[in-house]
Amino acid sequence: MRILVINPNTTEAMTHDIGEAARRYARPGTVIEAVSPNWGPRSIEGHYEDFVAAVAMLEVVRDRSHEFDAVIVACFGDPGLAAAREVSNVPVVGIAEASMLMACTVAHSFSIVTILPRVKPMLEDVVKLHGMEARCASIRTTSLSVLDCERDPAAAGREIIIAGRKAIEEDGAEAILLGCAGMGPLDKIVQAELGVPVLDGTACAVKLVEGILDYGITTSRVAAYHAPEPKEYLNYQGPTRP
Amino acid sequence: MRILVINPNTTEAMTHDIGEAARRYARPGTVIEAVSPNWGPRSIEGHYEDFVAAVAMLEVVRDRSHEFDAVIVACFGDPGLAAAREVSNVPVVGIAEASMLMACTVAHSFSIVTILPRVKPMLEDVVKLHGMEARCASIRTTSLSVLDCERDPAAAGREIIIAGRKAIEEDGAEAILLGCAGMGPLDKIVQAELGVPVLDGTACAVKLVEGILDYGITTSRVAAYHAPEPKEYLNYQGPTRP
Amino acid sequence: MRILVINPNTTEAMTHDIGEAARRYARPGTVIEAVSPNWGPRSIEGHYEDFVAAVAMLEVVRDRSHEFDAVIVACFGDPGLAAAREVSNVPVVGIAEASMLMACTVAHSFSIVTILPRVKPMLEDVVKLHGMEARCASIRTTSLSVLDCERDPAAAGREIIIAGRKAIEEDGAEAILLGCAGMGPLDKIVQAELGVPVLDGTACAVKLVEGILDYGITTSRVAAYHAPEPKEYLNYQGPTRP
Amino acid sequence: MRILVINPNTTEAMTHDIGEAARRYARPGTVIEAVSPNWGPRSIEGHYEDFVAAVAMLEVVRDRSHEFDAVIVACFGDPGLAAAREVSNVPVVGIAEASMLMACTVAHSFSIVTILPRVKPMLEDVVKLHGMEARCASIRTTSLSVLDCERDPAAAGREIIIAGRKAIEEDGAEAILLGCAGMGPLDKIVQAELGVPVLDGTACAVKLVEGILDYGITTSRVAAYHAPEPKEYLNYQGPTRP
Amino acid sequence: MRILVINPNTTEAMTHDIGEAARRYARPGTVIEAVSPNWGPRSIEGHYEDFVAAVAMLEVVRDRSHEFDAVIVACFGDPGLAAAREVSNVPVVGIAEASMLMACTVAHSFSIVTILPRVKPMLEDVVKLHGMEARCASIRTTSLSVLDCERDPAAAGREIIIAGRKAIEEDGAEAILLGCAGMGPLDKIVQAELGVPVLDGTACAVKLVEGILDYGITTSRVAAYHAPEPKEYLNYQGPTRP
Amino acid sequence: MRILVINPNTTEAMTHDIGEAARRYARPGTVIEAVSPNWGPRSIEGHYEDFVAAVAMLEVVRDRSHEFDAVIVACFGDPGLAAAREVSNVPVVGIAEASMLMACTVAHSFSIVTILPRVKPMLEDVVKLHGMEARCASIRTTSLSVLDCERDPAAAGREIIIAGRKAIEEDGAEAILLGCAGMGPLDKIVQAELGVPVLDGTACAVKLVEGILDYGITTSRVAAYHAPEPKEYLNYQGPTRP
Repeated sequence: MRILVINPNTTEAMTHDIGEAARRYARPGTVIEAVSPNWGPRSIEGHYEDFVAAVAMLEVVRDRSHEFDAVIVACFGDPGLAAAREVSNVPVVGIAEASMLMACTVAHSFSIVTILPRVKPMLEDVVKLHGMEARCASIRTTSLSVLDCERDPAAAGREIIIAGRKAIEEDGAEAILLGCAGMGPLDKIVQAELGVPVLDGTACAVKLVEGILDYGITTSRVAAYHAPEPKEYLNYQGPTRP
Repeated sequence: MRILVINPNTTEAMTHDIGEAARRYARPGTVIEAVSPNWGPRSIEGHYEDFVAAVAMLEVVRDRSHEFDAVIVACFGDPGLAAAREVSNVPVVGIAEASMLMACTVAHSFSIVTILPRVKPMLEDVVKLHGMEARCASIRTTSLSVLDCERDPAAAGREIIIAGRKAIEEDGAEAILLGCAGMGPLDKIVQAELGVPVLDGTACAVKLVEGILDYGITTSRVAAYHAPEPKEYLNYQGPTRP
Repeated sequence: MRILVINPNTTEAMTHDIGEAARRYARPGTVIEAVSPNWGPRSIEGHYEDFVAAVAMLEVVRDRSHEFDAVIVACFGDPGLAAAREVSNVPVVGIAEASMLMACTVAHSFSIVTILPRVKPMLEDVVKLHGMEARCASIRTTSLSVLDCERDPAAAGREIIIAGRKAIEEDGAEAILLGCAGMGPLDKIVQAELGVPVLDGTACAVKLVEGILDYGITTSRVAAYHAPEPKEYLNYQGPTRP
Repeated sequence: MRILVINPNTTEAMTHDIGEAARRYARPGTVIEAVSPNWGPRSIEGHYEDFVAAVAMLEVVRDRSHEFDAVIVACFGDPGLAAAREVSNVPVVGIAEASMLMACTVAHSFSIVTILPRVKPMLEDVVKLHGMEARCASIRTTSLSVLDCERDPAAAGREIIIAGRKAIEEDGAEAILLGCAGMGPLDKIVQAELGVPVLDGTACAVKLVEGILDYGITTSRVAAYHAPEPKEYLNYQGPTRP
Repeated sequence: MRILVINPNTTEAMTHDIGEAARRYARPGTVIEAVSPNWGPRSIEGHYEDFVAAVAMLEVVRDRSHEFDAVIVACFGDPGLAAAREVSNVPVVGIAEASMLMACTVAHSFSIVTILPRVKPMLEDVVKLHGMEARCASIRTTSLSVLDCERDPAAAGREIIIAGRKAIEEDGAEAILLGCAGMGPLDKIVQAELGVPVLDGTACAVKLVEGILDYGITTSRVAAYHAPEPKEYLNYQGPTRP
Repeated sequence: MRILVINPNTTEAMTHDIGEAARRYARPGTVIEAVSPNWGPRSIEGHYEDFVAAVAMLEVVRDRSHEFDAVIVACFGDPGLAAAREVSNVPVVGIAEASMLMACTVAHSFSIVTILPRVKPMLEDVVKLHGMEARCASIRTTSLSVLDCERDPAAAGREIIIAGRKAIEEDGAEAILLGCAGMGPLDKIVQAELGVPVLDGTACAVKLVEGILDYGITTSRVAAYHAPEPKEYLNYQGPTRP
């Protein structure tokens, strides 16, 4: 089973760590290849960067997804997720989606602990698009940028624990989702402190993808994720029809 | 990895088939034991039977879940699911829940094809309690009783295909959930006809449970699924505190 | 008019007090019989106890409801309410339901003041199942167990008043529902302090039942509360078809 | 117990019939006085008429509610209900509200069968304002005007039965609310045909009011229904502060 | 382009100021006539006053709207808005509606800063009726009465700024709507302090109306805002059919 | 007043027509410049094309928005709208958003008539993200591609009229939104047939933008639309901080 994990942030060290995080809980037979697009923002902390990175990521899906059994979009905004499903013949899972779905099996409600306050409305939209409002107790932000998690994991962990504790005590959270791929490696450290399930979306996505592939199902192509119509592109290489 | 699959319906042949369905997509190392409670209704087609079967099922959880790594409640109403989580130290997953969560990774919206019209409001409540209204396109009923699926699978399959096709064409469903554990073995036959993902909750639950266990998370005990308080029962054997 | 009030908690003193609470505002011609099941938990403070008590309660409904004109389920989680409607030929009303409906006639929004924090998610589900989210301002918990209300009503009253005041001042509550049958007798004491309507679900249920019976309507049997199908039970006495 | 039933439609024959409908299920000690305002539209079939009639009705509340123990607003749009609560010291119940609340005790979901198609959006708003969307299966309209119910009850009954049957069969309704005060007297005839509870809001309101008064609760005055501030009116007689 | 701005509050100074506020951002060719009804409450701070003022306002619409190209209802509760649409052949816009719609183009979510706490539930209903719950972060009240804004604008501005700042910092508001027509002239002063868009509903309504008229659309008359049926009124002058 | 109208579809004839449609109802002083990105899909009929076109469009915003007073994104999916707001110092309005907001002033509920069935789930998400579910009666699809509207407007108009009529008669629509920029020029023809307001999003956006600019408000930058953090891009020209 070969899984392509795409980090839409173009920071190599982060991509490397996400790959490691993905491998931690993968089954022995699961091969993980973690890549970043070869263009785009170093980190994603808003809508503009999310869109640019999504298209850079979609080029990777377009060009390389046929080499794999599944694709994981490893950025908590799930950038370009629906589009990736249209142009790939294999299942595609986002890490926000994966952690929300997985959390539902162990908690009545969850909170998301994420980076800077400015992404809160963007993540509210992500929760809404996945139809998860009723299960999401709150979105708690920190002062962390995406790359802060990379640079000083110990300090990041401390901020996440403080925000997570507030989510549990004030918002009724029963599980904590780490709202940035870069926070993923901290899952077990934070969990040990908080005493509730703490979920890294990348790990969740790997487990979901393994399950989907074992079960032999794949993206439905009848409506939302229908393959694109054959079409001319101006000055751009569109997808071949999957 | 040992999983206890409890069919709350006390019909042995059905329990056997659910066990087989669970094993189909389980990993090599996963051991499935499928059991029914030793009392209760032969089949569950309404709230009363759901409640009685839930308590009979909870006795199995209380008495045997410590022998396993996880428990699956194999009836589409997810009877007693929250209660089972309170009295077990291992993860517990319901098949309605499992199929809805899994479907979200391959479809923008799903429909449930289930048994008799009388269970429709009950399943509407199940969808609502799991917070899945936004993803559920419709609940389509048939003339099938629970045991009809057992008795004449071919005929059952034909009814399910007709209802599923209507869900796709009229309600916008992009995946079909089989809304009764007894329909589970028909998943691939129905899928071949309908051309969209068709999900058996038991298979989905097995894959989710394997993922949860691999990842090392379990039920959050801080609120909704807190262990029961130590307490006297009148003429009944309550749980020992897990 | 004969009303069977079933306290699913098997604590005799509590059942006695609920009977008294029910009689306080009953009409002269209304006869109240308050009973508990002859098995089950002494008190209900979670999902597991709720399910066990529901089935014990359902046996009382099955065996005795034909002697009465209506049944009241006197526990704020409305345990087994839908199931009770299926197996009884007379109207069945739950006290959570009754107090929420009655509150709507005197307040734009209400809060529920209840027992331990651990029941909050369970009551959130009750509110959701009754479709009352838009009217429910908040659920406020206390440190009280079910039987604390019985043991030291004065102390319980003081805690309820503190929580109720917060609900009014911080959450916008315009009425307070006492979120445990055991709190019922405190309604007027709490109301005198808070200056807003304070509702005991048992009293509300009695008044609703009298109204329903006067009007000559009863449970609709066409869908959600259809009588169970004739069916074999393994080692258990199922209902005769009502 | 004295109840003032105000028909905001200024059609005397209709007011008389509503009074009769109210008395049918009232208790022996309950005295019903049915009145109409002395100005305003003969019937209410839209927002404009609803507003004008509401203010005419509010004058009756202002001038006469102190003579009664409770007030019922007997028009299915609940015109001026919140305003009436502000200027009256006794409970005020609307018939749309009353029938929706009462229906919740006997049905998982209800439909409203009402007059002309043009009032459908208005009633959708009424359902929404009462927070009853989750319980309302549909609003079915007919070709009937308000006064048609009065003029030819038999013909009206036939239309209501047809619409009600569609609501049950196509929309999943388990109870039918008669969506116009003038349809009230037909409740039992329609119920006999449809086999589900059929509710006249006036009857429901009488029963709810009797219950509220027995229980000794009244409108909460802390927020939504606070008495008006003392205030000058230009060329109009405002309320004295209740 | 001639616009009739109706202030349903019968306080002449306030009406004058609303007229000025409306003219500030009107185009050169737009003529504003600001009027109040010739009867009704001096100010609107609750449901009762809202209804009375609505009907007084509707008489102005009935009698004078044919002289204009559009009508603006200049009170933040949008009193009688739907009714005004029924009896006028020109577009009618309310200021709560206008400010909410306009805010959606510049902010992900907005808060309303309004007068006394007692109107909060009333404005919650306004937000709900316009279907704007998802965009409204909060409703913040002050100690200001309607006429306080008139009497001491500087003091009113200070209170509004404090409440607006809380809405931004605690509730996530990205724009502030001034929740009373009388606050309108303070928009730019408050905006300068808060650093987010601050919207006066009257200004918004003028701009929307100009846009609607330029585009050549007007109120849809097929359902919700259908002209009233021809009808007799008792002791009241009903509308001629528009 | 200079408005940049960006058609994210790279089909010149369509861009020309959108420019014409924008100018039809613009004020005399309003200058419209209609452009397409210089790369990307010829038309947008799914998520993949939507994302690619969004980024191509964002480059236009990044490079040219400082020359204008406002930007309009002229594709009914509102591609990249939130991102465009982050990188522009002038207001940005999408045509789906604009037509939905404008429709709310003339109709209680609207339907969207759009292109191929495959875009329905995508537009459902657009409606949801704008929080407009309660006002949207339905989304009706046709057999039209984006460029069909261009190629044979008469035939396109006939299909739109058929779908619009169904929306009015079966779904309760009171206004019709043309769910593709290419349909815009047909607004008045369709309106003449249907008898309800028919809205072209481009026209609506022009009128809203003129209103916003007149009023002197612009995008709130405190949260959702905060300018991007200063940041390195790999092989791509990021925005200069606006």
